[in-house]
Amino acid sequence: MNTVITIGRQFGSGGRELGRRLAEELGLAYYDREIVTAIAKSTSFSEEYVTEVTEQCPNLYPITVGQSFHLPYGADYQLGQLRTVYKAQSDLLRSFAEKSGCVIIGRCADYILRDYQPYRIFVYADTDARVARCMAHLREDEAGTTEKAMAKKIAKLDRERARYYEYYTRNKWGDRANYDLCINTTNFVVKDIVPHIAKMFK
Amino acid sequence: MNTVITIGRQFGSGGRELGRRLAEELGLAYYDREIVTAIAKSTSFSEEYVTEVTEQCPNLYPITVGQSFHLPYGADYQLGQLRTVYKAQSDLLRSFAEKSGCVIIGRCADYILRDYQPYRIFVYADTDARVARCMAHLREDEAGTTEKAMAKKIAKLDRERARYYEYYTRNKWGDRANYDLCINTTNFVVKDIVPHIAKMFK
Repeated sequence: MNTVITIGRQFGSGGRELGRRLAEELGLAYYDREIVTAIAKSTSFSEEYVTEVTEQCPNLYPITVGQSFHLPYGADYQLGQLRTVYKAQSDLLRSFAEKSGCVIIGRCADYILRDYQPYRIFVYADTDARVARCMAHLREDEAGTTEKAMAKKIAKLDRERARYYEYYTRNKWGDRANYDLCINTTNFVVKDIVPHIAKMFK
Repeated sequence: MNTVITIGRQFGSGGRELGRRLAEELGLAYYDREIVTAIAKSTSFSEEYVTEVTEQCPNLYPITVGQSFHLPYGADYQLGQLRTVYKAQSDLLRSFAEKSGCVIIGRCADYILRDYQPYRIFVYADTDARVARCMAHLREDEAGTTEKAMAKKIAKLDRERARYYEYYTRNKWGDRANYDLCINTTNFVVKDIVPHIAKMFK
């Protein structure tokens, strides 16, 4: 069976960096944003819509589904769409795991790929450390964001990730019982520890 | 400042083994059972009593405190004794951290030594794995113990550790936010991963 490593992560904790470096170190495929693009392609939803519904649990309020659609906004219909996306995502993750060893960021991969016995990592950090990390990597459209606003954004995004994860898996997001390794990056430098973590999975 | 590593651990998870091997690997002092002996010596309580009250939070029911004591069993008095033991334990742990780099098992060391900025590890495992580990290392006086009885014992001991930890620290025992690294030993062989974990702290 291929080595599959899944990374759950709090927003701003460096989980994505840790996953990317781990994939490089172990010579494994790395899937993150590529997943959204592939789902969009296979379902004809827009990438924006796929991004939205693969990070949040259904709220059942009207949603935008690209520009060329004029759809009824009934809850049943919306749920059907979400199921379509979740199904496409599940199929895709399984195809990745079949194809080669890989590292997959987020997206309930630990749960969806449980039959592939993945190593399940959860990456987290203190709020202050996460705010500092995000402030050091502001995108252009985030210029002027205050630390307070960033802390609020982080808390909101994590609530959404938690609800999404719990909706589809019925497990508690970030509960250590569901992971093999939980890494608090507050007092570590990610690039320094990755080579050692990698060896635990060899 | 000396390198201090504290190990919180679920009963039967291999936390003690992990700590011992980590100390060997890093050339650090290792403190576990020695702590009880030293506290007993410095307070004149029996080792049995010290063991009992450094794993459990105060219940305020009558307790035995060695053979040569005839003491009143008032709650105030008992709390005073517990405070004496906790104070002796705190002083002792601080003296260890001052003396040299060390690995300390349990005993709220992560909290007591917080000013020494320890690396805080929590070791845990699935119940089945912990029962299997305990059944494979039965002491003579445990001969004939069933898996069911062992699972019950494990759950009881962990409840006591959690209550003890939470009584003295006001933090939740095993909450990943209070640790730098949480290691689930279910799918790992402890002696295989320790050399790599050790390098994270060098």
